[in-house]
Amino acid sequence: MQKLTCAIVGASGYTGLDLTRLAARHPQLKLVALLSDRWAGEAAGDRLPLSGPSAGLRYGALSEASAVEAEVVFLATPPEVSVELVPRLIARGLRVVDLSGAFRLADKAAYPTWYGFQHAAPELLAEARYGLPELNRAALAGARLITNPGCYATATAMALAPLVKSGLVSPDGVAVAAMSGVSGAGRKASEEYSFCELDEDLRAYRLGRHQHVPEIEQTVKRYAGRCGPISFVPHLVPVRRGILATATLRLAEGVAVRALEEVYLAAYRDEPFVRVLPAGQVAVKDVARTNRVHLGVAVDARAGAAVAVAAIDNLVKGAAGQALQALNAAMGWDETSGLDLVGG
Amino acid sequence: MQKLTCAIVGASGYTGLDLTRLAARHPQLKLVALLSDRWAGEAAGDRLPLSGPSAGLRYGALSEASAVEAEVVFLATPPEVSVELVPRLIARGLRVVDLSGAFRLADKAAYPTWYGFQHAAPELLAEARYGLPELNRAALAGARLITNPGCYATATAMALAPLVKSGLVSPDGVAVAAMSGVSGAGRKASEEYSFCELDEDLRAYRLGRHQHVPEIEQTVKRYAGRCGPISFVPHLVPVRRGILATATLRLAEGVAVRALEEVYLAAYRDEPFVRVLPAGQVAVKDVARTNRVHLGVAVDARAGAAVAVAAIDNLVKGAAGQALQALNAAMGWDETSGLDLVGG
Amino acid sequence: MQKLTCAIVGASGYTGLDLTRLAARHPQLKLVALLSDRWAGEAAGDRLPLSGPSAGLRYGALSEASAVEAEVVFLATPPEVSVELVPRLIARGLRVVDLSGAFRLADKAAYPTWYGFQHAAPELLAEARYGLPELNRAALAGARLITNPGCYATATAMALAPLVKSGLVSPDGVAVAAMSGVSGAGRKASEEYSFCELDEDLRAYRLGRHQHVPEIEQTVKRYAGRCGPISFVPHLVPVRRGILATATLRLAEGVAVRALEEVYLAAYRDEPFVRVLPAGQVAVKDVARTNRVHLGVAVDARAGAAVAVAAIDNLVKGAAGQALQALNAAMGWDETSGLDLVGG
Amino acid sequence: MQKLTCAIVGASGYTGLDLTRLAARHPQLKLVALLSDRWAGEAAGDRLPLSGPSAGLRYGALSEASAVEAEVVFLATPPEVSVELVPRLIARGLRVVDLSGAFRLADKAAYPTWYGFQHAAPELLAEARYGLPELNRAALAGARLITNPGCYATATAMALAPLVKSGLVSPDGVAVAAMSGVSGAGRKASEEYSFCELDEDLRAYRLGRHQHVPEIEQTVKRYAGRCGPISFVPHLVPVRRGILATATLRLAEGVAVRALEEVYLAAYRDEPFVRVLPAGQVAVKDVARTNRVHLGVAVDARAGAAVAVAAIDNLVKGAAGQALQALNAAMGWDETSGLDLVGG
Repeated sequence: MQKLTCAIVGASGYTGLDLTRLAARHPQLKLVALLSDRWAGEAAGDRLPLSGPSAGLRYGALSEASAVEAEVVFLATPPEVSVELVPRLIARGLRVVDLSGAFRLADKAAYPTWYGFQHAAPELLAEARYGLPELNRAALAGARLITNPGCYATATAMALAPLVKSGLVSPDGVAVAAMSGVSGAGRKASEEYSFCELDEDLRAYRLGRHQHVPEIEQTVKRYAGRCGPISFVPHLVPVRRGILATATLRLAEGVAVRALEEVYLAAYRDEPFVRVLPAGQVAVKDVARTNRVHLGVAVDARAGAAVAVAAIDNLVKGAAGQALQALNAAMGWDETSGLDLVGG
Repeated sequence: MQKLTCAIVGASGYTGLDLTRLAARHPQLKLVALLSDRWAGEAAGDRLPLSGPSAGLRYGALSEASAVEAEVVFLATPPEVSVELVPRLIARGLRVVDLSGAFRLADKAAYPTWYGFQHAAPELLAEARYGLPELNRAALAGARLITNPGCYATATAMALAPLVKSGLVSPDGVAVAAMSGVSGAGRKASEEYSFCELDEDLRAYRLGRHQHVPEIEQTVKRYAGRCGPISFVPHLVPVRRGILATATLRLAEGVAVRALEEVYLAAYRDEPFVRVLPAGQVAVKDVARTNRVHLGVAVDARAGAAVAVAAIDNLVKGAAGQALQALNAAMGWDETSGLDLVGG
Repeated sequence: MQKLTCAIVGASGYTGLDLTRLAARHPQLKLVALLSDRWAGEAAGDRLPLSGPSAGLRYGALSEASAVEAEVVFLATPPEVSVELVPRLIARGLRVVDLSGAFRLADKAAYPTWYGFQHAAPELLAEARYGLPELNRAALAGARLITNPGCYATATAMALAPLVKSGLVSPDGVAVAAMSGVSGAGRKASEEYSFCELDEDLRAYRLGRHQHVPEIEQTVKRYAGRCGPISFVPHLVPVRRGILATATLRLAEGVAVRALEEVYLAAYRDEPFVRVLPAGQVAVKDVARTNRVHLGVAVDARAGAAVAVAAIDNLVKGAAGQALQALNAAMGWDETSGLDLVGG
Repeated sequence: MQKLTCAIVGASGYTGLDLTRLAARHPQLKLVALLSDRWAGEAAGDRLPLSGPSAGLRYGALSEASAVEAEVVFLATPPEVSVELVPRLIARGLRVVDLSGAFRLADKAAYPTWYGFQHAAPELLAEARYGLPELNRAALAGARLITNPGCYATATAMALAPLVKSGLVSPDGVAVAAMSGVSGAGRKASEEYSFCELDEDLRAYRLGRHQHVPEIEQTVKRYAGRCGPISFVPHLVPVRRGILATATLRLAEGVAVRALEEVYLAAYRDEPFVRVLPAGQVAVKDVARTNRVHLGVAVDARAGAAVAVAAIDNLVKGAAGQALQALNAAMGWDETSGLDLVGG
């Protein structure tokens, strides 16, 4: 079989690194270009444990991005960069998977508020397919432009969407507290993200203002038909990888935990990457370095609440792995292709 | 001045260790007994960086607890042990600070549900004074039996009580996600709490079932006059010390963040251990190894929510430090006595 | 091609877990049995991110080990268990890879000192082939009993052997300081290995008495023809995986660093798992979750010393990965088969 | 008693922060100035858990350093800055404690090699007193210019000096491997020191080239009368605070471990900050946030080696704490004044 040639733009960020690791071993992909100003001129095999031809690939400069030669281009770039590159690549007839938030929100009016810019290519928003196969598979077949979900949005929407759709919980008054490993902030040369500042620390940040909020609401609404405004509080915790999202929802009276678990089981029964567990057994360590999602739900009857918990690896199911999964779906390949990861 | 003699029962647990560190340097206390089966016979100075007479104290066996000779006895023991010891020590006329949960709940009927035992000394529940000075100072003067608050309960109740009392938020529908350092689980010889199992992991546990839940509700109700059932989800995160509690509350319409901050400032204006900060600046590292509480509040207007964040050191303000602060209050000493800690 | 059936005894320890992850994906192996008393009766797919038939395998009891049906048996058991099992399995004509130290030392007289037991099967010591392909490949072809090297021994012997053989450094007066991730101690239910005791701590242990010392000396001597007694100090550091070994050697006068690097390059030129780097660039994070060895050497001319540094993942190249590599060598398969790991 | 007024220059680095914490509580010191461009204008109490007048001190700009008004000035500045400031402050008759390496080496010819600059104030090198009281107490009485030891140098020299002096080990062929917490690198805004790059990693750096090497040799020679060139390899490990130094020395034949322990006990018998322990019990966690030094020594008879292990907190005994201890010695105060730290 002829392999699909692919390029990764922004290959030295943490997401770009995981994409490189995975794409290099994907049986239907042939990695032909890696762009990164940081490592321009170096061989990929000097930066990552690659073997075969990928190891010999040399990083090119980001300035080559719009002219890159490949059938599919992954953009692991900031939204401001993606919004410029995507139209040029699409215009050249290439397939694009954008891992930034630049095309995630269908409503162009939302970008100034949440991303701080007027969208420069609003005509492509309708074409962009949201790459969360478990909640949006039908839309992905044949997609030319895949907008890859955010890490918090993946974990949170997968936890919320089936429950809200079931009607057993309210679509209003949802409160989410989520924790992310530090790699979620990207590769940073800043005091704030230094080891000494973050080790042994816990803090909340961007309370109610994280750009994944409208993305979560859009995804839940698309899947469940409705979704109230969600209160979302992200936290920074001293781990390298992983997201744990804990959502508290208003529960209809008399609903037992088994009924909620059934909702998850029904929604995700055939999903190769999803496991439903007792909520107290959902743990980041079990999904780290895999494309898996672990989900659990508990009932707090006293408080009239359901509590849903989701764990993912922010760089895999929350970024690079999901990008490949969505491409697999778009191409009609086995969705697990290239994603049989050992974890550990 | 004559110093008050004091004993610590359960001196080798993490709370007992911090109590020992602090009591040994407290200007009004004289440490005269340390009980711990684990280290019975060893000198305290071989286990902790003590100097002076405390260093030479030898750990005695727990079986000596009820006959211990000291004017005040700190119990850093499990609730099942405390509930047996407290009546005997009180009967001998000693002052007692119990750091377990055995006397925290005023309603004896709550113990079977939350602590798994019928209370063996319910007649003492009315006498026990809840040792959270910032919310219950008046009751502490002269207290003979101080029941020291739980770590999660301290952080959460301090964040919630003034807001609920203000009427600017609803006493109902409160959702709390809290994270604790591993020392909160006590000194454990278990696979589950081994370094390899917890490092780089995140998980929720005891969802809606943590024994601090009724304690938080009781404290808020006592202070604010009302409190609905709270949904509380604790999480285990890979730090040694510290608690971060994030509470999402339903906000009355049109309330600005400044109004909520004013509530905190008014409630805690003269408190030497409390600082009110922007919510995104509340961080465990700034309170670690101090008796401080850092509090912040944000408004998520879209979601009609207020989000309150509190950080403490679970072993200091959440246990040993607060025990000394409450004793200071009971004795009429300067409440900061022995608690001028450097952190770091 | 017919796959070779394999069993893993001791499948729930950290080494057993990594073996399971890797064997389940090895193209020439078919996992048919997993033995572990801890998880007896559970499905492997409930403990590890497996897919396919391996996920459905149920853990059996350790008592079934000597009767296990498989063409090759991996023993991830303590030496006391391996020394009993190996003769029975070999007698049944099975191929065995023993990951314990039970058959690593050729001299039966060394076991009482270093392992604390009289060897119960000394007649098999001559048959056991030391499974470190880079230093002992020739002996592995067709091996029936492979004794898998220790983690510290792998890193240290690979760093030392070529240098000692070159004659540019002295075979005497070698001082090694090595650091290991906590998983090297195995799965432990002990206070000593709890998160709170190890996080943020550093310490040396078993100074000069670690059982890998005679193994290192035997390996260097076998490869280089000579080796003086090595001073070896292991350290425990707060990481989950990884070994860094730093060896200080007496350098012949006037030898430049380039000459030492050439020795490494010549020894390991065609080795797919070895990379030679500047000594300050050898880092555990680059080899974690791979079968790689990173090596570097520096010259400290003032002190007349060469300093060699090696990094491996203690559970992969230091245990499970190397076991598969050695089996690959024994079977005549591509040595990298099943070991193309992404790291991260 | 009149307190001595003191200033801290470079108050926002990790050493400067610990100095501020400690100086603010020192019974004979009155903190009157804190200089730091990073926080210029902010109140110290907004950055650190201070109380009393220190909390209200506002950070001034570094440009005010040479004109600062205080009886003693602590310089927590880079050597290039200290070498300029010290002559001006000394010329104004102030007492100075310099925590950089600018005045540590008595031989001006050593600076170009180890510090990269020609010394601009060589006339002060003879006046500078090396502030390691346990090894150099006599020289400190009345000192006007104290040059505070390096962190690695403190741990290593304290481990080596008495052993070398005893004649039981050789002054030649000493090999030291040391590990440092990340705060030893200072406050850094760099990718290299980011949480994601350092967490779970281990590596060696500056092999044989660390600027503390000549300082160690000078200290040992001054104390013991002799010292060969030492091979010193520092390592970076994922903890915030702490140094563990492991030194391998050539042991005279037949020397028992007890003889070496006696050497330590004799040398440090009356030292309030030193404890001699079995080498495997020397651990960073026991000295963290204290001014203590834990020392141990083991004999590796097979290898003809003694192995000495030392643990300190790099920011306390390795920097800020020792600076106060040395000042205490210079002023004739109790050497433990202001240093009764709780650790934890």
